[in-house]
Amino acid sequence: MLKSIPPILGPDLLAILRAMGHGDEITIVDANFPADSSGPALVRMDGISATEILDAVLSLLPLDDFVDEAAIVMQTVGDPTRREPVVDAFEGILQQHEPSMSISSLERFAFYERVKKGYAIVQSGESRLYGNIILKKGVIRPAD
Amino acid sequence: MLKSIPPILGPDLLAILRAMGHGDEITIVDANFPADSSGPALVRMDGISATEILDAVLSLLPLDDFVDEAAIVMQTVGDPTRREPVVDAFEGILQQHEPSMSISSLERFAFYERVKKGYAIVQSGESRLYGNIILKKGVIRPAD
Amino acid sequence: MLKSIPPILGPDLLAILRAMGHGDEITIVDANFPADSSGPALVRMDGISATEILDAVLSLLPLDDFVDEAAIVMQTVGDPTRREPVVDAFEGILQQHEPSMSISSLERFAFYERVKKGYAIVQSGESRLYGNIILKKGVIRPAD
Amino acid sequence: MLKSIPPILGPDLLAILRAMGHGDEITIVDANFPADSSGPALVRMDGISATEILDAVLSLLPLDDFVDEAAIVMQTVGDPTRREPVVDAFEGILQQHEPSMSISSLERFAFYERVKKGYAIVQSGESRLYGNIILKKGVIRPAD
Amino acid sequence: MLKSIPPILGPDLLAILRAMGHGDEITIVDANFPADSSGPALVRMDGISATEILDAVLSLLPLDDFVDEAAIVMQTVGDPTRREPVVDAFEGILQQHEPSMSISSLERFAFYERVKKGYAIVQSGESRLYGNIILKKGVIRPAD
Amino acid sequence: MLKSIPPILGPDLLAILRAMGHGDEITIVDANFPADSSGPALVRMDGISATEILDAVLSLLPLDDFVDEAAIVMQTVGDPTRREPVVDAFEGILQQHEPSMSISSLERFAFYERVKKGYAIVQSGESRLYGNIILKKGVIRPAD
Amino acid sequence: MLKSIPPILGPDLLAILRAMGHGDEITIVDANFPADSSGPALVRMDGISATEILDAVLSLLPLDDFVDEAAIVMQTVGDPTRREPVVDAFEGILQQHEPSMSISSLERFAFYERVKKGYAIVQSGESRLYGNIILKKGVIRPAD
Amino acid sequence: MLKSIPPILGPDLLAILRAMGHGDEITIVDANFPADSSGPALVRMDGISATEILDAVLSLLPLDDFVDEAAIVMQTVGDPTRREPVVDAFEGILQQHEPSMSISSLERFAFYERVKKGYAIVQSGESRLYGNIILKKGVIRPAD
Amino acid sequence: MLKSIPPILGPDLLAILRAMGHGDEITIVDANFPADSSGPALVRMDGISATEILDAVLSLLPLDDFVDEAAIVMQTVGDPTRREPVVDAFEGILQQHEPSMSISSLERFAFYERVKKGYAIVQSGESRLYGNIILKKGVIRPAD
Amino acid sequence: MLKSIPPILGPDLLAILRAMGHGDEITIVDANFPADSSGPALVRMDGISATEILDAVLSLLPLDDFVDEAAIVMQTVGDPTRREPVVDAFEGILQQHEPSMSISSLERFAFYERVKKGYAIVQSGESRLYGNIILKKGVIRPAD
Repeated sequence: MLKSIPPILGPDLLAILRAMGHGDEITIVDANFPADSSGPALVRMDGISATEILDAVLSLLPLDDFVDEAAIVMQTVGDPTRREPVVDAFEGILQQHEPSMSISSLERFAFYERVKKGYAIVQSGESRLYGNIILKKGVIRPAD
Repeated sequence: MLKSIPPILGPDLLAILRAMGHGDEITIVDANFPADSSGPALVRMDGISATEILDAVLSLLPLDDFVDEAAIVMQTVGDPTRREPVVDAFEGILQQHEPSMSISSLERFAFYERVKKGYAIVQSGESRLYGNIILKKGVIRPAD
Repeated sequence: MLKSIPPILGPDLLAILRAMGHGDEITIVDANFPADSSGPALVRMDGISATEILDAVLSLLPLDDFVDEAAIVMQTVGDPTRREPVVDAFEGILQQHEPSMSISSLERFAFYERVKKGYAIVQSGESRLYGNIILKKGVIRPAD
Repeated sequence: MLKSIPPILGPDLLAILRAMGHGDEITIVDANFPADSSGPALVRMDGISATEILDAVLSLLPLDDFVDEAAIVMQTVGDPTRREPVVDAFEGILQQHEPSMSISSLERFAFYERVKKGYAIVQSGESRLYGNIILKKGVIRPAD
Repeated sequence: MLKSIPPILGPDLLAILRAMGHGDEITIVDANFPADSSGPALVRMDGISATEILDAVLSLLPLDDFVDEAAIVMQTVGDPTRREPVVDAFEGILQQHEPSMSISSLERFAFYERVKKGYAIVQSGESRLYGNIILKKGVIRPAD
Repeated sequence: MLKSIPPILGPDLLAILRAMGHGDEITIVDANFPADSSGPALVRMDGISATEILDAVLSLLPLDDFVDEAAIVMQTVGDPTRREPVVDAFEGILQQHEPSMSISSLERFAFYERVKKGYAIVQSGESRLYGNIILKKGVIRPAD
Repeated sequence: MLKSIPPILGPDLLAILRAMGHGDEITIVDANFPADSSGPALVRMDGISATEILDAVLSLLPLDDFVDEAAIVMQTVGDPTRREPVVDAFEGILQQHEPSMSISSLERFAFYERVKKGYAIVQSGESRLYGNIILKKGVIRPAD
Repeated sequence: MLKSIPPILGPDLLAILRAMGHGDEITIVDANFPADSSGPALVRMDGISATEILDAVLSLLPLDDFVDEAAIVMQTVGDPTRREPVVDAFEGILQQHEPSMSISSLERFAFYERVKKGYAIVQSGESRLYGNIILKKGVIRPAD
Repeated sequence: MLKSIPPILGPDLLAILRAMGHGDEITIVDANFPADSSGPALVRMDGISATEILDAVLSLLPLDDFVDEAAIVMQTVGDPTRREPVVDAFEGILQQHEPSMSISSLERFAFYERVKKGYAIVQSGESRLYGNIILKKGVIRPAD
Repeated sequence: MLKSIPPILGPDLLAILRAMGHGDEITIVDANFPADSSGPALVRMDGISATEILDAVLSLLPLDDFVDEAAIVMQTVGDPTRREPVVDAFEGILQQHEPSMSISSLERFAFYERVKKGYAIVQSGESRLYGNIILKKGVIRPAD
């Protein structure tokens, strides 16, 4: 463990968050997501909820403020305007870290395709369906 | 996830538990333990308590009834007869799975040496000190 | 061996079944199938029948109830409506594990193509021709 | 599958049997044996009995007639003269392939040490305890 | 060496022949063939004639009787109907193992393309030009 | 880059600091140190001074308060009581992060031997001789 | 360290500069650039400014005088004719090493695509935005 | 070193020349050529002239007499009919080994493309520009 | 194939012979020798006699004339002064290549130990027992 | 090629020289030396004389002035006080780069042992016997 870094972030995930650059994307997925076959580097966090991971990741990772959509969830199949409870939880966590941002959404298969092109995936132990969220990394500006 | 297997047991840990044979040992260690430098194969489970992992592991892993000491903790440095609270928790879980067995203990450096010779290590997110336990795998007898 | 897990499931196959996610597919093939050249990860189980493996796999693997075809066999060449005896055996095993599902079928070359896109292959020792079956993994829903 | 080769012998095991030379040893072990941690190359044959494997292996592998002990089992712990039923079964199979040879035995820990120095291990699905046998490869003499 | 297996078949080639399935192809090529750059797994047998290797391979490998062309040679450039002496030798060996089959032929560049898609290549020490033959593996039917 | 983590700590070094456990040691060495041949994992930081790296590392890494010597430098050859200016600089940085600790020292060859047994080495661009320091990781205690 | 080679050039970067040939390109990027996901070999130099690296690299690397554009920066998004301060700094360094050359620029996404096709990337610790520059290697002509 | 083999041909280059088959191509390139990024296996021979390497290679490698162009150089950019002095030197060496053959040439970018598809590249220390030559391997005919 | 190099010497064996230096040893062993478990790099030449390989190897490899024993065979077990027919054949080949040298011999287990310390092993298809010979590489002296 | 770096120093050798630290040793050996079996990393420079390599290496590599013996050759076997001509050539080159240093020597087997413990070996094409020299790397002191 390290000082001031959330202890659920292990060595591999820390290295991935640090190595990502502007525009690279990481997806936190639920326990049923076909993560291993998606392609990007995979960090397993069986037993940890997606919301707990999101909170820890956003304590370190700046989101991209050059685009409108830096945090993206999957739309409910058959009811794209429905808001899943887990998404409400994601929204609350996002507000704490990035008050000016909001969550957008993608149709299921478009979501899958975007995950495949991302930098990494964290497979959580989230048991709630639709417990998936794509995060697009932003920049740290010079102190000035 | 799979039917009837505790969901916190991921693919690597499942494979390790299955590949171990009679007498092979796996150690669940706390978040401060120098696990990566110990040598055996390492599965990280940052964020999960050692007790939760012990419970899941013992639901699948038979302990060795050929020896007296199949579940071993580290003695408190400077007070070898002291019983740490986390050890009481381990004992309670052990009783649920193997009522006839009890936990034994090893002096700190003897414990380190034994871990190094084991088959694998699971690094938990256990924040309590002394949250470490060695488990020695037993046999499954023919149905007869 | 582990408690309550069918002993014919070794470490590699257990890890594969656990790592698969919703929609990933695993195919159990007979002893003559060109499995090694198909592409996906291969687990060999020479000497074990396809039916015995199917029974063990379905004791752990949930099938996909989001689609109509979660268990698929190869059609007999030249007689697509014929039902091979080994398929009857598959059907019986499927009924025991997933009473509401039934087996569908694919033309031979479509079957080959689908296997290539799957997550893994288990090469059994099944000597009966057409002893092949594709299984599509489903989800474990939250306990609620 | 190949003509005239027992189908339970897969590619890896065939290659091992062929690559071994005079005096190299292979051990067939039961399902509880700590095979993976022993060191030599490991072929898993979960679900197949040790006797079935022995019969297939001896159909191809010549045993060493330069030494007295070319087929060796583990002595029963605490009763070294006892003959386990699985050893009787081994003996019968050996007689069919090498009528002039007989099985010898080693004390448990000496057996473990010898396995570690061998060329390879086959982990069977044998559920009977003491279902382990070391085989020492012999030579094929020139046809003359 | 092993009982009843032609001694020129080493561990790698035995494993390849065993791992191939129905429809997979292996090509025995002459000493001048650009084998290493073709792509498939390569077994070198420098110094051994292609005919000697063909005889050994066919003693184990069933050919595909589901298709008309299971043994294919390269046509002489500029004279596609010419029969090279080495092809006559191949034909004689084929007759001994598969009396009902005959050798077909492919134009040179079509032959190259087909080799590239095959499972494996054996580079012989055959010094005769056109000493190349593609073999398509068949099935072993259940004993019934 | 990440929020609140010193930007000179790249992905590899972050992962190493996180993976280390209680008692594991990391050494920051100067630009002339034979780091690559010492054995432990090496992170190169050519061009960065040892003091700048020490400051960044100590902002995350807890030092071991179970032992008296958790920060150790190399003694000047021929004058073991001499205090090099770079060591004074190390001391000042240490005081900022761990006010109750002080730097100890080791004879040159004992220092080399200890580095070899450590977990990792960071090769700085430090041009000052004796710009080397061993750090022993401590624990993060439960929040209570 | 070596005589007469800038000490910030470590072993990996030296080898890369030496292995590059006529027309191969290396890009020095700022700390926010998505370097790891771009594809080419990556050398991290966290904490070192892009200008310091450019100066060191140009002390060894000849630029390509066969083309007009051998040093290329990224255009400011939304204002392609703007000259960022860091680019002025690049220009000054370039003039010292290659007085007859000047810097050209590329639109942002064209810049990304060109980086992906390059030989290598150096990720600096440059905190100024747009601190990226592509260098195209030239030839060393025979002494004559 | 070996009897009767030019000592500048080291183990890797000897193995490559031997493994190449009929029609495979190897290119000897000058010291400025972008060899490492071209793709094929690379043997570095820094400090040795291209002509010395050509002489050694042709002492072992038969050239392809099935095609008109078995030794190919790059045309001078802007003056395709010009004959570079190094090409005259190549021609003289070729005449000694293959009196009936002559050198042909390719436009620069067509030359690059052909090198990429070749089997291997030898990067010489040749300082003369245009010191590059592609060689197409021929056959060794049976002694008859 | 290459000009003037015996065609049974393939790429790997050529590279090994070339990479060996003064005093390094290579052993040609018969088909029953436990070559794969001996340790040194192994080249298989199933189907080729040891004498044919010896002749090809000695056409390239200088033997060590700094020592008395540069070609060594294994003594017949139980009859150390006996001369096996295959050793007579080795002697004849040695005389053709190195007329001033003769073959010496080693007791069986000393022979095994020496092979283990050698540079490489060639496993021939030699069916005659005792068809093993160690060769110690010599130097090529400067032309003077 | 790079500006102001001797062109015979390729990427691997440059990286090795740069990665070595104070006290690490590199040995330049002649063409007959058993370099590949010695253990340390090997760079082949077939065809280049040891003296040419020594001159290039010393243009970059500082020698160790903390010890008396930083450049060491092998003594002539049977005549330890004899000075080989190649050693005179080494001495002359050393004087140009390090006028205050001189060459020392080691008995043959002590020399071999020391090479084995070194950081790297460069195998030259040096045909003169005893063309071997060990170099011990020194430090670059701060500019002050």
